[in-house]
Amino acid sequence: MAWKPVEYVDASPEVRAVYDDIMQTRKTDWINNFWKVLAHDPATLKRTWESIKQIMAPGALDPLTKELIYLAVSVSNQCNYCIASHTAASRKAGMTDEMFGELMAVVGMANETNRLVSGYRVEIDKAFE
Amino acid sequence: MAWKPVEYVDASPEVRAVYDDIMQTRKTDWINNFWKVLAHDPATLKRTWESIKQIMAPGALDPLTKELIYLAVSVSNQCNYCIASHTAASRKAGMTDEMFGELMAVVGMANETNRLVSGYRVEIDKAFE
Amino acid sequence: MAWKPVEYVDASPEVRAVYDDIMQTRKTDWINNFWKVLAHDPATLKRTWESIKQIMAPGALDPLTKELIYLAVSVSNQCNYCIASHTAASRKAGMTDEMFGELMAVVGMANETNRLVSGYRVEIDKAFE
Amino acid sequence: MAWKPVEYVDASPEVRAVYDDIMQTRKTDWINNFWKVLAHDPATLKRTWESIKQIMAPGALDPLTKELIYLAVSVSNQCNYCIASHTAASRKAGMTDEMFGELMAVVGMANETNRLVSGYRVEIDKAFE
Amino acid sequence: MAWKPVEYVDASPEVRAVYDDIMQTRKTDWINNFWKVLAHDPATLKRTWESIKQIMAPGALDPLTKELIYLAVSVSNQCNYCIASHTAASRKAGMTDEMFGELMAVVGMANETNRLVSGYRVEIDKAFE
Amino acid sequence: MAWKPVEYVDASPEVRAVYDDIMQTRKTDWINNFWKVLAHDPATLKRTWESIKQIMAPGALDPLTKELIYLAVSVSNQCNYCIASHTAASRKAGMTDEMFGELMAVVGMANETNRLVSGYRVEIDKAFE
Repeated sequence: MAWKPVEYVDASPEVRAVYDDIMQTRKTDWINNFWKVLAHDPATLKRTWESIKQIMAPGALDPLTKELIYLAVSVSNQCNYCIASHTAASRKAGMTDEMFGELMAVVGMANETNRLVSGYRVEIDKAFE
Repeated sequence: MAWKPVEYVDASPEVRAVYDDIMQTRKTDWINNFWKVLAHDPATLKRTWESIKQIMAPGALDPLTKELIYLAVSVSNQCNYCIASHTAASRKAGMTDEMFGELMAVVGMANETNRLVSGYRVEIDKAFE
Repeated sequence: MAWKPVEYVDASPEVRAVYDDIMQTRKTDWINNFWKVLAHDPATLKRTWESIKQIMAPGALDPLTKELIYLAVSVSNQCNYCIASHTAASRKAGMTDEMFGELMAVVGMANETNRLVSGYRVEIDKAFE
Repeated sequence: MAWKPVEYVDASPEVRAVYDDIMQTRKTDWINNFWKVLAHDPATLKRTWESIKQIMAPGALDPLTKELIYLAVSVSNQCNYCIASHTAASRKAGMTDEMFGELMAVVGMANETNRLVSGYRVEIDKAFE
Repeated sequence: MAWKPVEYVDASPEVRAVYDDIMQTRKTDWINNFWKVLAHDPATLKRTWESIKQIMAPGALDPLTKELIYLAVSVSNQCNYCIASHTAASRKAGMTDEMFGELMAVVGMANETNRLVSGYRVEIDKAFE
Repeated sequence: MAWKPVEYVDASPEVRAVYDDIMQTRKTDWINNFWKVLAHDPATLKRTWESIKQIMAPGALDPLTKELIYLAVSVSNQCNYCIASHTAASRKAGMTDEMFGELMAVVGMANETNRLVSGYRVEIDKAFE
């Protein structure tokens, strides 16, 4: 019932075109399982890759900051695969052990205070509106 | 049943000491409702402030990056007060409209792909282990 | 598009029977909006009430402990209505301000450490298996 | 510390009655682990099964649509067992690969836009009230 | 600090083009706040609309089923704006009160059993792998 | 990419001091992986332990109630490690099988009704304000 990765040699031209763009954009000859499994639905594969490519490109935020934010959300959502893959991507983008430790501390604290706020039903300050 | 903010004039010396430290650390003469409501439990007020103070101080990650991560988690958790307060804090730390837009894009996309990963039950690549 | 509460005078006999049982079980002459809105789907109203009645009855855990757990989950899920109603129910069952403060502290901390565990990908100790 | 499935031969008459009803309702001679583990608490086993039986029966929504909704929520919540079991149940109810792909796309997109809405603090349109 | 909707008359040509496509695709002369707020980031507005347009188009699943799934996820995530807007969209696509009631029942039950599964740490049946 | 537990013999004096305090406080000669992995960031290890030590100490709520609440949140969040470790801790604090069954029932029901409340957009009763 699990979805097997679609390897390059078995992929349709439409899927291969996405794989090629991923490898060229990331300057690698390797595709991780996320994309190889999404390949079962070529429309979702293409749309998701093009969105990621646009969103994760350098902009007002640099690539490392974007990767840290991606990792923060994945940790907060407790998505194990995503944590593994975006820890790897963050390291590639320059994340050190110290940065990872500080990232975890912020994610943990945000999850704690989000609940304190809800439980105490804190009203939004006028200064924030 | 809602918790009223504890104003400085009504606060115990223990609570005032925390308020004073918040204002001094943040170089402001203003305390937002989160702290004033936590003041109903001075032990939690003190522990939470001291943790936040330690965690949000400049380190391997700069204060703006930490604020962006805090905001990202709060948005992902859909905590309305936290979004309002940490949007304000992020702006104070230097977040521009462009940065906010990119932050939202990454948070949205991470939430999307976290679920694609789960639904397709993607196995973790050996390269990530 | 919002769902209006179904008042007793406007309710069908099937719905009234549930309202009567709620009031008798809780020793009150008042029904809160949750039930009055669920009344739009009498099957769900009846099933939900009977489940709640069974689950929240005294057992190996006393009613206050059960209410605290209900409140803890509602706070963790950030369900505003549920926090309001179960704070009220917890107080009725004996929750003091001190208990509420300690409950919030545990809920906050659990949400924090849940994410530290995920982010660091902590392996389950053999002693726990 | 893990909960072992309670096999039919080892089950109490109360538990066996639920197992029998599950097998008869589902026209199968097989019980999956969820029920066999819930059997440690016969009251919860019985209540949960009777609720599921009522809720998942054909009504205004057909069984396939109900299974897809169940799967959508389980994917959104990232419950691995639930995704495995409800993918199987959805397939049995008629879900094709194409339907699964479209379901995942909707679940992913809903999770994305839910956060965009929160982050931008979008006000509810009067037309929706 | 909140984001004001960008009205058509104030919008850039790039944003107007998206608004026009939304109105034409949905056969309406009205744009809801979600899009008008996303307009602050035209790249995200365009990408999100094009993704939604592709994903919500009729396919192996009909538009009503897709809307119900979107609503189910939004309810499960407790996104108030999204619940309001997708309840409206579901009604427009044909959702009756009975269907809404059954949808809520399934979403509620899935959230319940997802946690029973986790708490009891149920192992995935071999038949599901 | 996974984080290895830091064993006592390999730990710095700062980390050993925390380990010693954990063992003394818990009257055990054993440290579970959570702490041994957090040891990669001694500041977070120390702060988290001191917070937990303060929060989980007997107060207005007894240690068993606190453990049950911790477990309830961990189950609701579906954090597998946390469920394993806090099930063990709850048992040590006196949780019986019957208590566990009732805890699960409450956690499941709270997750269900939290979503019914959201989906039906139930307004908060004046009596709760």
